[in-house]
Amino acid sequence: MTEGSGKTEELAAASHNGSARARLRAFLEEDRVVNAIMTLIIFNAITLGISTSDWAQANFGGVLRVIDKTVLTIFVIELLLKLYAYGLSFFRNSWNIFDLGVVSVGLLPATAGLSALRGLRVIRALRLLSVIPQMRAVVQALLDALPGMGAVIVMISIVFYVFGVMATIMYGNSFDEWFGTLGRSLYSLFQIMTLESWSMGIVRPVMEVYPTAWAFFVPFIVITAFSVLNLFIGLLVNTMQSAVEEETEAEFEKLRALVRQETDQVDAHVLELTAKVDALSEELRKAREGGA
Amino acid sequence: MTEGSGKTEELAAASHNGSARARLRAFLEEDRVVNAIMTLIIFNAITLGISTSDWAQANFGGVLRVIDKTVLTIFVIELLLKLYAYGLSFFRNSWNIFDLGVVSVGLLPATAGLSALRGLRVIRALRLLSVIPQMRAVVQALLDALPGMGAVIVMISIVFYVFGVMATIMYGNSFDEWFGTLGRSLYSLFQIMTLESWSMGIVRPVMEVYPTAWAFFVPFIVITAFSVLNLFIGLLVNTMQSAVEEETEAEFEKLRALVRQETDQVDAHVLELTAKVDALSEELRKAREGGA
Amino acid sequence: MTEGSGKTEELAAASHNGSARARLRAFLEEDRVVNAIMTLIIFNAITLGISTSDWAQANFGGVLRVIDKTVLTIFVIELLLKLYAYGLSFFRNSWNIFDLGVVSVGLLPATAGLSALRGLRVIRALRLLSVIPQMRAVVQALLDALPGMGAVIVMISIVFYVFGVMATIMYGNSFDEWFGTLGRSLYSLFQIMTLESWSMGIVRPVMEVYPTAWAFFVPFIVITAFSVLNLFIGLLVNTMQSAVEEETEAEFEKLRALVRQETDQVDAHVLELTAKVDALSEELRKAREGGA
Amino acid sequence: MTEGSGKTEELAAASHNGSARARLRAFLEEDRVVNAIMTLIIFNAITLGISTSDWAQANFGGVLRVIDKTVLTIFVIELLLKLYAYGLSFFRNSWNIFDLGVVSVGLLPATAGLSALRGLRVIRALRLLSVIPQMRAVVQALLDALPGMGAVIVMISIVFYVFGVMATIMYGNSFDEWFGTLGRSLYSLFQIMTLESWSMGIVRPVMEVYPTAWAFFVPFIVITAFSVLNLFIGLLVNTMQSAVEEETEAEFEKLRALVRQETDQVDAHVLELTAKVDALSEELRKAREGGA
Repeated sequence: MTEGSGKTEELAAASHNGSARARLRAFLEEDRVVNAIMTLIIFNAITLGISTSDWAQANFGGVLRVIDKTVLTIFVIELLLKLYAYGLSFFRNSWNIFDLGVVSVGLLPATAGLSALRGLRVIRALRLLSVIPQMRAVVQALLDALPGMGAVIVMISIVFYVFGVMATIMYGNSFDEWFGTLGRSLYSLFQIMTLESWSMGIVRPVMEVYPTAWAFFVPFIVITAFSVLNLFIGLLVNTMQSAVEEETEAEFEKLRALVRQETDQVDAHVLELTAKVDALSEELRKAREGGA
Repeated sequence: MTEGSGKTEELAAASHNGSARARLRAFLEEDRVVNAIMTLIIFNAITLGISTSDWAQANFGGVLRVIDKTVLTIFVIELLLKLYAYGLSFFRNSWNIFDLGVVSVGLLPATAGLSALRGLRVIRALRLLSVIPQMRAVVQALLDALPGMGAVIVMISIVFYVFGVMATIMYGNSFDEWFGTLGRSLYSLFQIMTLESWSMGIVRPVMEVYPTAWAFFVPFIVITAFSVLNLFIGLLVNTMQSAVEEETEAEFEKLRALVRQETDQVDAHVLELTAKVDALSEELRKAREGGA
Repeated sequence: MTEGSGKTEELAAASHNGSARARLRAFLEEDRVVNAIMTLIIFNAITLGISTSDWAQANFGGVLRVIDKTVLTIFVIELLLKLYAYGLSFFRNSWNIFDLGVVSVGLLPATAGLSALRGLRVIRALRLLSVIPQMRAVVQALLDALPGMGAVIVMISIVFYVFGVMATIMYGNSFDEWFGTLGRSLYSLFQIMTLESWSMGIVRPVMEVYPTAWAFFVPFIVITAFSVLNLFIGLLVNTMQSAVEEETEAEFEKLRALVRQETDQVDAHVLELTAKVDALSEELRKAREGGA
Repeated sequence: MTEGSGKTEELAAASHNGSARARLRAFLEEDRVVNAIMTLIIFNAITLGISTSDWAQANFGGVLRVIDKTVLTIFVIELLLKLYAYGLSFFRNSWNIFDLGVVSVGLLPATAGLSALRGLRVIRALRLLSVIPQMRAVVQALLDALPGMGAVIVMISIVFYVFGVMATIMYGNSFDEWFGTLGRSLYSLFQIMTLESWSMGIVRPVMEVYPTAWAFFVPFIVITAFSVLNLFIGLLVNTMQSAVEEETEAEFEKLRALVRQETDQVDAHVLELTAKVDALSEELRKAREGGA
């Protein structure tokens, strides 16, 4: 066996391999395959919903478990096929990574009977967002809005961190439940930012021990409310601007085309006239020369 | 009796019938009829309001009941006349279906003394929305906004469902009142989405049993708040865009008309001049020929 | 005394009267008078604030009362002078009516020691809004926004009324404090619309008696939230549109002027050229005639 | 020593001084110096966060204190160098004043063991906002938005003050905790404006004593909500307008340039033609004169 023939065989295998992969890709992208997977996701979402009912668990518990395992197996096979069909480019599409993640959660051993893990399995139903194209577009639009808000989010985070550390140091000793650790302070500040029970629930009790606490919390509320407002305004102006821009751009282009066309027509008539005057001049010159 | 004469008679009846219907339609659309119905609806709304007072019930209970039955009878007659006058096209106007629905509620037997059914009768006063043209426009505008929000609403529903199932599985056992069934979880998540008592009322108690519950609820709040925000921004941008578009469209049209008119004027002068130069050429040519 | 001379005297008196009124109007509109009144309002606002302090009441109660009575007297005199100076046209300016109203409240007898009436006197400090021109503009802008929201406000009112009557009939018996009368229901629905304790405070307790109450309150929240949102969007689009319109209007006007000017220049050159060609024609005609 | 030589020496010293200052300024503005300071701020922010943990305090308390003192010393030196390098112009940049303020707080004697003062030290971490250029831009944008909101903020303040004084007078006696002093009333009204527990927590209890209290609080909520809404709309319209303006301005400029260029081209051709006609006239005139 020569090296050359080895190479040829490899190439043949690769090509055979490649065409098998291409055929698999075509198969996985067929409408009926995608629709079947979508139907399965919806069906699984419904069975997962039904399985929350104690009555259903008591009567059809076995069936529901079998369905769940079957669906999970199908999802795993689908992902393995996709992995094989697309190779490393599978990971270039972040929706694939999302699918891989939410399906993997279902494979975690639930032997410990952790209700949290059993609950997390349901996250699989979020595949609906990745399978329906309109949902992908909505999620994409939400994610696209994030970078433009980056700077304000960083600013709010800094403000949160500084106020969190301050609250922990200042009120942590007396109000351990709310401000005992940095984590608890951040959670409490998040609650205060959402305005939930901020005064009756937290600030008034704190003010009974530290009467000037309002001078800490009221500015915090005003600053975060104002920052969130600006976040929102920034987002709105961006969206609006690109929407209006597109529209106006087209109108201006139409107008520019009209200006060009109209002036070109006048210009053409002027040039035509110039040619006539030139011809007249030439004729007169000839006439004079002839006459001379 | 021949077939022909039968047909003629039928046609005559239909025509007679048709003209009766047309006359009825014209009558029902007369301003004074519409206004009378509107007055009756407002009057009924007021008597329904008065009938909530125990004192009024004790003193004028009989009168109020008679008024209510009379008004209901008039409404039923009005709808029957409309049904006859418009035939099946009655159902093409969704406001008619709305009227039919809210009036029908009053016909349900209240013998069981169900306060819920008695309460539902009041929904009849919503006919004010269908009778006053401006109100129709406002409701129409609200409904028109819905389709554009479809995709985001579906997305929020999926997120709600998934989080609802998860919460039921994870927290249902310990917090039966809030997350015991899928329905209760969805209600509690709706409450959390509106930020009402989300922390002090629900998440803090849950965190006492499941210390990491914040990692479930805080992302839920952020995701739904952000989605609702985007829903709102989408709605706003759409409304704004169509408002600005209309305005700008007119301005651009005016400008285009001006460009056309002004260049046409210049063009006309150029063409006039061309005609003069042509005439001059012709004259010179003739002069030369005459001279030759 | 003849009728004529009587008339003349009357006219003279009227004229004299008129000039006295005109001088008074000029005096009342002088900057230093307006500023003095403004200073007095601010000063009174501060003394009214100070008078809420028990310590200040105990130590300077007499002084504060004297200040208050003096200021009130000055305000009354100012208004009487204005009434005389402007006559009936005083009532054409709604700010004057506002001033008259808030000052009159201070004249109500507080003999009964009603703290409510004493409290209402402070409303006088709102004259700051009518005296400072920028404040007038802000309030005017707020009021100007109202008519555009009229239809939606009427719609929300109808929805409120219908839901209020329904809640009173359905839940009034079991929850007298919240839904016992139409008034209480409307107040409770307003609270629910602001999302304050709507679930933990009201709907969950109601659901313990009427398990389907969520089907009444959740739609109410969604409908009112959506209506308020549309109210807000309508307001925003209106404001934005008129702001953008003004701006764009000016730009379009500038552009139209440019188009006119540029084409007029070309046109002028074309007409100039036409004149030259005419002159040339004329000259040639003369030359030929002369030559003939 | 003559006066002249004294002056020269002074000038030399000043110049030497000036160049030392210039070199120091250049040094302080070097990227690696700025980055070092930024790294130090982030490092300090983290150590301040760690120092809130009791466990860390117990084990590394000494180290943390040493780090804190060292960092504070470096900050003080940095500011002193800047003060020397920039002289009085140091105070022209409000970010420098901000840095000076937040660093100074750390120098306050914490001997009394006041947790409030220890907490305030953390405010130093806000220097992150002044060191990172993007953060400066965000904060600047927030501050730039303030002047445009000035008039509405003043109006809201007046409304707050008047309602605060009224609430104190009317409800202060019965509800000392909420409306006992003007300060408490203003705080309670702020809470009510944020809609936190306004009804269940405050207005319903007040209404048990003063049944008409809703007529005071509901208008307050509506007025402030409406004012804040207008504040927000004003801010949004301003931001949007300047964003759209810039965009449209450029488009209009492009269009104007096109109109000018196109008509100038036509005009050039017309003028060229005019020159030709002039030349022709001249030639004919000469020919006739020559012929004459």
